[in-house]
Amino acid sequence: MHTGVVNLVTVDDIEAAAARIQGVAVRTPLVPCLWGDPDRPLWLKPENLQPVGAFKIRGAYNAVARLTDEQRARGVVAYSSGNHAQAVAYAAREFGIRAWIVVPEGTPQVKVDATRALGAEVVLVAAGQRETRAYEIVAERGAALIPPFDHPDVIAGQGTIGLEIVADLAEVDLVLVPVSGGGLISGVAAAMKGLRPGAQVWAVEPELAADTAASLRAGHLVSWPVEDRDRTIADGLRSQPSELTFAHQRALVDGIVTVAEDEIRDAVAVLAHRANLVAEPSGAVATAGYLHHAGELPRGRTVAVVSGGNVDPAALAALLA
Amino acid sequence: MHTGVVNLVTVDDIEAAAARIQGVAVRTPLVPCLWGDPDRPLWLKPENLQPVGAFKIRGAYNAVARLTDEQRARGVVAYSSGNHAQAVAYAAREFGIRAWIVVPEGTPQVKVDATRALGAEVVLVAAGQRETRAYEIVAERGAALIPPFDHPDVIAGQGTIGLEIVADLAEVDLVLVPVSGGGLISGVAAAMKGLRPGAQVWAVEPELAADTAASLRAGHLVSWPVEDRDRTIADGLRSQPSELTFAHQRALVDGIVTVAEDEIRDAVAVLAHRANLVAEPSGAVATAGYLHHAGELPRGRTVAVVSGGNVDPAALAALLA
Repeated sequence: MHTGVVNLVTVDDIEAAAARIQGVAVRTPLVPCLWGDPDRPLWLKPENLQPVGAFKIRGAYNAVARLTDEQRARGVVAYSSGNHAQAVAYAAREFGIRAWIVVPEGTPQVKVDATRALGAEVVLVAAGQRETRAYEIVAERGAALIPPFDHPDVIAGQGTIGLEIVADLAEVDLVLVPVSGGGLISGVAAAMKGLRPGAQVWAVEPELAADTAASLRAGHLVSWPVEDRDRTIADGLRSQPSELTFAHQRALVDGIVTVAEDEIRDAVAVLAHRANLVAEPSGAVATAGYLHHAGELPRGRTVAVVSGGNVDPAALAALLA
Repeated sequence: MHTGVVNLVTVDDIEAAAARIQGVAVRTPLVPCLWGDPDRPLWLKPENLQPVGAFKIRGAYNAVARLTDEQRARGVVAYSSGNHAQAVAYAAREFGIRAWIVVPEGTPQVKVDATRALGAEVVLVAAGQRETRAYEIVAERGAALIPPFDHPDVIAGQGTIGLEIVADLAEVDLVLVPVSGGGLISGVAAAMKGLRPGAQVWAVEPELAADTAASLRAGHLVSWPVEDRDRTIADGLRSQPSELTFAHQRALVDGIVTVAEDEIRDAVAVLAHRANLVAEPSGAVATAGYLHHAGELPRGRTVAVVSGGNVDPAALAALLA
C-alpha cells in the first residue's frame, strides 16, 4: 500500500540523464536478428557491451552526476556484489572520487579484484551486514549511497535505453525487459510511454524468482523468501521491487511473462550462436521470453534488452557445450 | 608489377557508400575495453553484430546499390561459401532481386541452408569450378558478378567502418584490421588516411596464411599455395590480395603483424569472456595482434576491428572450453 503520492520519472528526467551519460555509456545499436519470427521481427539492445558489461553504468553514472560537487567530493558507497558495484566504481573513477563497495565475505575473488581494479575500496563484511555497514560509511564519511534501483536518478539513467530504442526504431511495437528490482523496466517504460504510448512494454522474469509477477497480479508488493529467489540461475534477478519501482510498473508496464530455467539457458546459447553476443543468464531472460512465450506476447516489431554479459568463463563454457 | 595506373578509393567514394548503406548495415559502436593496456587503450569495432554476422554486408550492399536499375533487375551472382555469399544474398533480398550463389560441393549444409533462407539460389558445383560457373551465369542471365573484395564499390563499402571510427574516436592513433583479400583494410585505410592522416593503420594476418606480409616485404604480390593458406583456423583469411587491394595497401597501410594459431584462439576466448562478443577466428586476429604483439605496434589509442562472428557452435564450445 502506498503511503503517499509517488512521482514517476518523466521523459524530461530521462533526456537530462541521456545528456549526462553521453560519452560514458556506449550508445548501443539495435541489432536485427535474421532468425526472428517474421510476424514479430526481433532486434536486440546489447547492453552487455557497456563498460562493466551491463546497463547498470547508465543509472549509476547519472546518479553520481546528479550529486552536488560537495557531495561528490566526499565519495560514494554501494552495497552489491554484482554489476551495480562495478558500475558505481566505474562512475566514481570517471569523476575522480572515492568509492566504497561493501560486499559479503565469500564474494568470488574475481569480482573483488575487478572492483578494486576500478579503484574502489572493497569493504568485506559478514553476510547480512552489507546494508548496515554501508550506512555506517555514509555516517562516518559523509559519502552518498548510490542504490541499485530504488532512486529516481538511477531509474532515469536506465530509461535512456528507451530513448535510444525509439530513436533507432520509431515504429517499435513491443519492448521486452528483464525485471528484478525494477529499475531498468521502470526507466524504459517511462521513456516508452512518454514517447510511444502505443508501444507495449512487457517484463520478463524467472519463474523461480517471480515475485514481481505475483505482485502485479495481487496489485501490491508480494515478498518471496530470499531462499526461493536464490534458486534461479539468473543471479542478477534475485532482488525485489521497491515501492518506487513497483509504482512505475503498475502504472506503465503492460504485462509480464515468466521463463523457466531451461528457457534461460537456451536463450544464452541462441544469443551466442545466432547473435554473436555473450549474455549472462539474467541478460538473456527477455530473449527467452521472446523465444518460448510467443503465445502470451503481443505481435509486431519486438526489441529484447540484453541487459548484461558478466558470466563466469566456466559457466559460459557449460552453457554452450 | 602494375600494368597501369590504379585509382584508389577516396573518402568521397566512402561517404557516398555510407549514405547508401544507412539503415541496412548496423551503425556499430566502439566498445571500450577496461582490460586494455593503459598505454594503448583499446576499443573494439564489433562488426560481428552486422546482419549476416560480418562486415561483408557493407561492401556487398554498396556494390549492389551502385548497379543501374536495369542491371539489378537481371540479378546478381557471387561465388563464395563464406560471409560474402550471405552478404550478397541479403543485399539482393533487400532490393527484391534474384541472387545466384555458387558454392562447391561439400559446403556445410548449415551454410547452404542459411543462404537459401535469405532467398538466394544456391548453385552447387565441383571444387575448382566456382568461378567458371559464376561467369556462365553472368553470360546466360546477364546477372552482375559481385566480387568479394576486388572492386572499388566493395572497398568503398567496407571503408565506411573507417568513417565511423573517426566519428566516434577522433583522436584515434592506431587501427588494427584483419587482412586476406584486402577489401576491408583497403577501405578502412582509405578512410583513415583521408580523414586522419596522422593515425596509423596496421594489418594483422595469420602466420599460416601470411602471403600479404610476404608481398608487402617484397614490394610485389607473392602467391602462397592454397594448401598452405588453408592451414589456418581463420577460414575467412585464406584469400590473397588482388592488384587493386594490394595497391591500396602499399600506398596506405603502415605495417603488418602476423599472429600464431594459439594467439588467434586466445583472442576468441578473450573477446567472449571479457568483451561479451562472439568472434570467429578470422574476426579475432586484430585483437590477437593487440594482445600478443604489443612490442611491434605503435602505442596510443587503438581500435581493433572484430570483423565477423560466424563460428560453428561446436567449434565455439571447443574454443571456450
